[in-house]
Amino acid sequence: MNVSQSSLLWIILGCSVFALLFAIWLARWVLARSRGTADMQKISDAIQQGAEAYLARQYKTIAALAIVVAFVIAIGYGFFRTGLATDPVNNAKVMALYVTLSFLLGALSSGIAGYMGMWISIRANIRVAAAATSSLNGALQTALRAGAVSGLFTVAMSLLGVGGLFAVINNFVPAGLPATEWAQRIPYLIVGYGFGASFVALFAQLGGGIYTKAADVGADLVGKVEAGIPEDDPRNPAVIADLVGDNVGDCAGRGADLFESTAAENIGAMILGVILYKSFGISGILFPLVVGALGLIASIIGVMFVRTREDADPMDALNRGYYVTAALVVIIFFFATRWLLNPASAPDAWWHFFLCGLIGIATSIAFVFITQYYTEYRYRPVLGIAEASQTGPATNIIAGLAVGMESTVMPVITIAIAITASYALGSASGMEGAGLFGTAVATMGMLGTAGYILAMDVFGPITDNAGGIVEMSKQPESIRDITDRLDSVGNTTKALTKGYAIGSAALAAFLLFSAYLDEVRNYRGTPVEVNLAHPQVFVAGLLGAMLVFWFSSLAMTAVRKAASSVITEVRRQFRERPGIMQGTESPDYGRAVDIVTVGALKAMVLPGALVVLFPVVVGVLFKALFGLGAEAVAAFLMIGTIAGILMAGFLNNGGGAWDNAKKYIETGAYGGKRSDAHKAAVVGDTVGDPFKDTAGPSLHVLIKLLSTITLVLAPLFI
Amino acid sequence: MNVSQSSLLWIILGCSVFALLFAIWLARWVLARSRGTADMQKISDAIQQGAEAYLARQYKTIAALAIVVAFVIAIGYGFFRTGLATDPVNNAKVMALYVTLSFLLGALSSGIAGYMGMWISIRANIRVAAAATSSLNGALQTALRAGAVSGLFTVAMSLLGVGGLFAVINNFVPAGLPATEWAQRIPYLIVGYGFGASFVALFAQLGGGIYTKAADVGADLVGKVEAGIPEDDPRNPAVIADLVGDNVGDCAGRGADLFESTAAENIGAMILGVILYKSFGISGILFPLVVGALGLIASIIGVMFVRTREDADPMDALNRGYYVTAALVVIIFFFATRWLLNPASAPDAWWHFFLCGLIGIATSIAFVFITQYYTEYRYRPVLGIAEASQTGPATNIIAGLAVGMESTVMPVITIAIAITASYALGSASGMEGAGLFGTAVATMGMLGTAGYILAMDVFGPITDNAGGIVEMSKQPESIRDITDRLDSVGNTTKALTKGYAIGSAALAAFLLFSAYLDEVRNYRGTPVEVNLAHPQVFVAGLLGAMLVFWFSSLAMTAVRKAASSVITEVRRQFRERPGIMQGTESPDYGRAVDIVTVGALKAMVLPGALVVLFPVVVGVLFKALFGLGAEAVAAFLMIGTIAGILMAGFLNNGGGAWDNAKKYIETGAYGGKRSDAHKAAVVGDTVGDPFKDTAGPSLHVLIKLLSTITLVLAPLFI
Repeated sequence: MNVSQSSLLWIILGCSVFALLFAIWLARWVLARSRGTADMQKISDAIQQGAEAYLARQYKTIAALAIVVAFVIAIGYGFFRTGLATDPVNNAKVMALYVTLSFLLGALSSGIAGYMGMWISIRANIRVAAAATSSLNGALQTALRAGAVSGLFTVAMSLLGVGGLFAVINNFVPAGLPATEWAQRIPYLIVGYGFGASFVALFAQLGGGIYTKAADVGADLVGKVEAGIPEDDPRNPAVIADLVGDNVGDCAGRGADLFESTAAENIGAMILGVILYKSFGISGILFPLVVGALGLIASIIGVMFVRTREDADPMDALNRGYYVTAALVVIIFFFATRWLLNPASAPDAWWHFFLCGLIGIATSIAFVFITQYYTEYRYRPVLGIAEASQTGPATNIIAGLAVGMESTVMPVITIAIAITASYALGSASGMEGAGLFGTAVATMGMLGTAGYILAMDVFGPITDNAGGIVEMSKQPESIRDITDRLDSVGNTTKALTKGYAIGSAALAAFLLFSAYLDEVRNYRGTPVEVNLAHPQVFVAGLLGAMLVFWFSSLAMTAVRKAASSVITEVRRQFRERPGIMQGTESPDYGRAVDIVTVGALKAMVLPGALVVLFPVVVGVLFKALFGLGAEAVAAFLMIGTIAGILMAGFLNNGGGAWDNAKKYIETGAYGGKRSDAHKAAVVGDTVGDPFKDTAGPSLHVLIKLLSTITLVLAPLFI
Repeated sequence: MNVSQSSLLWIILGCSVFALLFAIWLARWVLARSRGTADMQKISDAIQQGAEAYLARQYKTIAALAIVVAFVIAIGYGFFRTGLATDPVNNAKVMALYVTLSFLLGALSSGIAGYMGMWISIRANIRVAAAATSSLNGALQTALRAGAVSGLFTVAMSLLGVGGLFAVINNFVPAGLPATEWAQRIPYLIVGYGFGASFVALFAQLGGGIYTKAADVGADLVGKVEAGIPEDDPRNPAVIADLVGDNVGDCAGRGADLFESTAAENIGAMILGVILYKSFGISGILFPLVVGALGLIASIIGVMFVRTREDADPMDALNRGYYVTAALVVIIFFFATRWLLNPASAPDAWWHFFLCGLIGIATSIAFVFITQYYTEYRYRPVLGIAEASQTGPATNIIAGLAVGMESTVMPVITIAIAITASYALGSASGMEGAGLFGTAVATMGMLGTAGYILAMDVFGPITDNAGGIVEMSKQPESIRDITDRLDSVGNTTKALTKGYAIGSAALAAFLLFSAYLDEVRNYRGTPVEVNLAHPQVFVAGLLGAMLVFWFSSLAMTAVRKAASSVITEVRRQFRERPGIMQGTESPDYGRAVDIVTVGALKAMVLPGALVVLFPVVVGVLFKALFGLGAEAVAAFLMIGTIAGILMAGFLNNGGGAWDNAKKYIETGAYGGKRSDAHKAAVVGDTVGDPFKDTAGPSLHVLIKLLSTITLVLAPLFI
């Protein structure tokens, strides 16, 4: 148990750098693939141009907002902390400096992670399309390895950021403080990193989610429903905007989302490691980063395992890679817990924590199965929606909403078991107060496979885009068949990642609350009770849950409004330029892209600002009125998180189920394409779009942002 | 302040009996109206027959379930209490006897209240139709007074039940206990009454709600959409079932709902009155019943004030009656607080509590306005849904869902202000620990107008039925015009009652939690903390919120399944007997009624059982595993209530908004009837049906049932 701090940091930073280098090698491998025909390139270039333009404008907006927040943090800490400075470390200026800098660094890194996801995907889409002209395996590997570029980059950046900040700040021990004491303070100083990451992720996911669904809904409603042309038809002026959307929403947004998840959860776990410093020393604080870094290597091996026979289901190959990764993570946990969480004073501790890690890994696998059950058309829920489509759109919608609500049951029971079991194992480890650390280890177990999961996720929009390119460049049926198969697998993997993201958010939620409560206790000196028997605390919780409903409403309204401007534009082009429908004139794709860009950026500000400001207002108000700021914020955060977990599950799974109910009917059931049942199912699919790709994923970020904002702004409420 | 117990009981029982007599007089007045033409009578008789048959079968099912529960309570108390018997009153057998008896009495009374609502409405519908042939005022007064029969009966029964139980048990002072001590125990002994009332209300509202919407959705989907015949067309075999549904769902279900609300909230407030016994004596315990009883007189006066000019908007007349009632309740509170809550030790207390009462009354008025804003087509939300209908059903659905979610914001803020303000006023009253009693007085203020509100509510289905009878008996346009106007007002009043019910549930929620916590403290001797910082408590809260999603899903699925059996039946009749559509053959209404009856009763058991069993399982499991039964149940209850309040608001208002968006388009907007926008709006309206009439109202009952079941079964969890 005499592990030196520097050797741990060396492992963390070494593995992360290796993963980055490997990601670069993968990127070069992907870029070396063929770029296909000139027709394909024309389309891909248009997508690339639109995506780059959108992201540039989006980042400009976010950067402006982030700088404002950085000022607020710097001033807030400098001003409010003064009164709390009872020891040399609680020095207001030092705190203000570190927290603000780590906020800015977190925001920047989150932006880069999102950008990287999009950068590779707009380059990979055409290469997957070209690879599909020769083999399924080539297309599958190109798409997954491109996804892995994003996945490895995101997780490695997060570990480098948190680990690097730790290593750097570690060198600036304040005068009069022992170095070991200082090491225990650092996790509190870098909470800003998690907040910066969540802040950018919120706007990236929200803006991207609004963009992608406004374009999708707008293109479908005018194209498929009014003009009667197929999906991805080049005559549709919004078709490029739709393809751009997959990149800026799914790739850039989800990249930022998982970046902030790993950052926030690692910092939260480190804070819980501080509590056990007496037993574990520095190992407990750095354990989360060590297993995360080793997990990257597991993900790399898992990705390289993936190959498929030409006639096989490509989902099997992806599943195989996932199971390889998960098995390696189990081995990593066995050795890491033995090595790092094995104090002489508690000889049985390590295997208790190893079991906690297993619980986390099992939870992630359980979420994969549950999500598949609720969103694939092999199972009862989706089949029920398809059946209900026979009696029209209304029964299709009722069935889909019911499936979405029901789909929250099993995940909640899984989470309930995971939290209570890992807490009980931690408590039984023979160490005092280690229950919460048990839940932290379980969360780390769940996050161990994050790199691979994110690779599978980015795989989805890449194959979606490849399918669009193949369709628009009028390739033969056999090639479309390959991209269609990959696209269908991509839909599944996207749904899985959402399940995984919400599962890890739920498991990590308690970890982050505890970090917050611990921080408040540190400042106040007394433990915090979030006692719902106080009316004010109860009311704050009620407000937290309400925020989730309000935010979801704003997100869906934003999509609807942005979509309606797309619809107006497409109708205008069809009306004013009749040559478009006859195929003699090319539509103005660029204008549609511009309109969605402006619409999405405008629409993201209100819901985003609401999420950032509302908890602050509640905390400040409850502090001023009742002197219960910290407790009110805790209840707001916890009950908001509960509502967010449920609402996100409802929206994600409901949306996924509608999508696949439509796909099931398209296989020929209940009259197949163009039947009345199919028309009804298209309505459900369209309603599901903002559910599963805007409001749902944004709620993942909202949950974490509530945690990180309260961690950073805690001094305001005390 | 030296008020004798018997004079208070005399007021409570006296006013209640007077209100019952007045209700009988009103019923005789209604029954004395003309029953119209033979054609009308034929239809009305069919409705009456179907409704009676359904309710008879429903009550048989519920009675069987209630008897099982009564046994469980009797045995549970007799067995589990033994160990707790530390004083003569905690005698297991005495407790088991009183709680079980009061459960059965509550169940019986709730059933009678529901039956009365239906009894009068199936007799009033035809009389309103007949009155419409001569005057608007006649029809309005007939419908409202019939509604008042149900409203007065329900509230009076509840007061008689609670007050009567108090008076009776008061005579059985156990040996060795002072009478004043015994009086303070009685509220805990009659909690069974509230549970019995909620238990029956849950099944009545759920079964009735499934019935009414299965019939409605089924009739509409085949009739309006497939066969292209108008609503309430006599050729539709499900039309009688649809009209029956209004009675068994809206009248019987809502009657039982408001019965249990008043019962549960009065008992909860009495328990809080016990805490202040030292200051208030018996006045504090009986205050809730006294103001409730005087509120009945206010409601009677309000109802008698309602009359309308033939060319006026009948909603104005109903609003006038409501404001008269509310003003009288203000006066009642002024005198009642001065008289009963005015201890010599705290000379300023009374006006603090008077202000609490005002807050309650203001809250109920605020809810009326907010509900109107979100569900009437004069305002932005509904207009937005109508506008979104232009681009098809998908955007109509997205817009409606967004409106529903947004509609939770203002009510939650209102509730937050009402709870914290009344708590602060109570705390500032100069009496120790009176904060919670302040929220109780506010709840009483809100409930003061319950009789009038329920009269307005039952007005809705009566006018709806009257419209159906006028339509089916082919009356001239001018008469239809009158019933259409009343029907439209009825839609508004139904929405208002739901807003009121959920508002009072939210305001009362905290009252009922406190009663539960107080009960637990009484048994355990130590105060209970519902500290969310404990993982197990947090997990229990998560499960409580999940129950709300699960239940909503089951309720909506139940409607969809029952509706699909109606659809199959109607299609069969159209197919096998072509004479029906040509008008030469009469459809078999009875078979459709039977099918819905069987379907609804079968479908209500699963969601109902879930609500009753889930909290018990959680409590017992968390007690066995973690020794935290009472805390877990408290978190389950509180966070389940928060989720329930939000979900019910979402469902009720979303459903109401869709309904009126369709009505707005029918006035000619966006192409009017038969336009594409109208078709899209019909989809939204159909989706909204199970929202606003099944799942939403059942959630009101669910919230209260969670409170009453935990109050009754508390000994199991300690």
